[in-house]
Amino acid sequence: MADISKYAYRVEPQEVDFTLRATLAALGAAVLNTAGIDAHGKGFGVDALNAGNRSWVLSRMALEIDERPRQYTDYTVGTWISDYGRVLSTRNFVLVDASGHEFGRAVTQWAMIDLATRSAVDLSWVGREHDGAVVPVPPPTDRPRKIRSVTPTQRAEHRVVYSDIDFNRHVNTMRYIEMMLDMLPVELLTCEAPVRLDIHFLKECRFGQTLAIGCEQHERSALFEVSGDGETVAVRACIEWKENGQKG
Amino acid sequence: MADISKYAYRVEPQEVDFTLRATLAALGAAVLNTAGIDAHGKGFGVDALNAGNRSWVLSRMALEIDERPRQYTDYTVGTWISDYGRVLSTRNFVLVDASGHEFGRAVTQWAMIDLATRSAVDLSWVGREHDGAVVPVPPPTDRPRKIRSVTPTQRAEHRVVYSDIDFNRHVNTMRYIEMMLDMLPVELLTCEAPVRLDIHFLKECRFGQTLAIGCEQHERSALFEVSGDGETVAVRACIEWKENGQKG
Repeated sequence: MADISKYAYRVEPQEVDFTLRATLAALGAAVLNTAGIDAHGKGFGVDALNAGNRSWVLSRMALEIDERPRQYTDYTVGTWISDYGRVLSTRNFVLVDASGHEFGRAVTQWAMIDLATRSAVDLSWVGREHDGAVVPVPPPTDRPRKIRSVTPTQRAEHRVVYSDIDFNRHVNTMRYIEMMLDMLPVELLTCEAPVRLDIHFLKECRFGQTLAIGCEQHERSALFEVSGDGETVAVRACIEWKENGQKG
Repeated sequence: MADISKYAYRVEPQEVDFTLRATLAALGAAVLNTAGIDAHGKGFGVDALNAGNRSWVLSRMALEIDERPRQYTDYTVGTWISDYGRVLSTRNFVLVDASGHEFGRAVTQWAMIDLATRSAVDLSWVGREHDGAVVPVPPPTDRPRKIRSVTPTQRAEHRVVYSDIDFNRHVNTMRYIEMMLDMLPVELLTCEAPVRLDIHFLKECRFGQTLAIGCEQHERSALFEVSGDGETVAVRACIEWKENGQKG
């Protein structure tokens, strides 16, 4: 039976904001990078799947960070797959500092798509073939929440450029998160309170499209929706900071 | 006497474009990250200097990449300081793959500023105090070239947001490079020819400013200049791809 796999990271200077703590985007990037490395090492990474004209696509992510670690902090990201459904597999993460303190966690849900048809592939065979990769440890927090509707109080536009896109020619996940968070007050983004982000991908946005980003801002939370070229919603997200602002 | 210090990297999935090779911005980030880690490890990093209300500021960089490495390629960045002048110190880099092949190099020049006055500090004392850190190996390529004038053929605007800024509240180097390169045709950005980038920082751009980016595009090269809020030029840069497009 598989075990939780751990990968070592350190908060690098380019990953901190002016509070000298890692940004949410940098921690989210470490989580997604860990997913890629772990799948690659176990033989079902994007590179292996591409050979069969398939790819993993992130469908939903929940990311919770209790305290943003300071520059040069060593930490590990532990990851495991807890279950495969017919359409989604669930990959979990815990972020733990050198003293063993868990300061963050994530739950992600991935679909596998056929690159020719761009439609989801039934994952039952993956569950059977890679049964040994499943670790019977439940997700470390609530699974990603659905965000049903957003009533924007602010809007922004962004044309998708080269530096926004990933190996798949689609806007990369962390850029969506950055462009949404950039609409919020910097005081909220740099506060020390625990934060939870839920993000939900409905369709892909491509190079050259113009994205409309709507933000429904509340006192300590915000909802977002992104659509490309006036089409239906491509991404919805929700972020919420807890009241405990004295921490850290 | 000091030696060239080597740091291990690997091209991670989030660092490649759709050619599955590392982007120039990702390789530049690895170079700058190496500078930070090496200075930190040797006791004259930004963190140590900040205690004395000083900081390193990148003044000029030249980056040459002969071939962009593929996803999951292991490589090292070797770095050394070759000399200290009164105002600028020169830090050099070589990028070498696992087979020992050098595929890139960089020369950077750094000033030390007083954080209260924002003016440059005489580096002679650093040269004396950290004399042991100087490695008598010349820079691996031409030092950064000065770019004297740019006649824009295209213009773009960009408001500086949270995700653009660094620990210093200024636009981070790689974001400047990304916003400039994003103005060029994607075919040029993803071509396999050797490329050289020179960038020259004249003043800092801050959170909330609106940047004007001018691009003078030629067939296989481009010049750029960036200014903030209608002020004088803050950054100039030049990029050039060699004719050898058959490589790789």
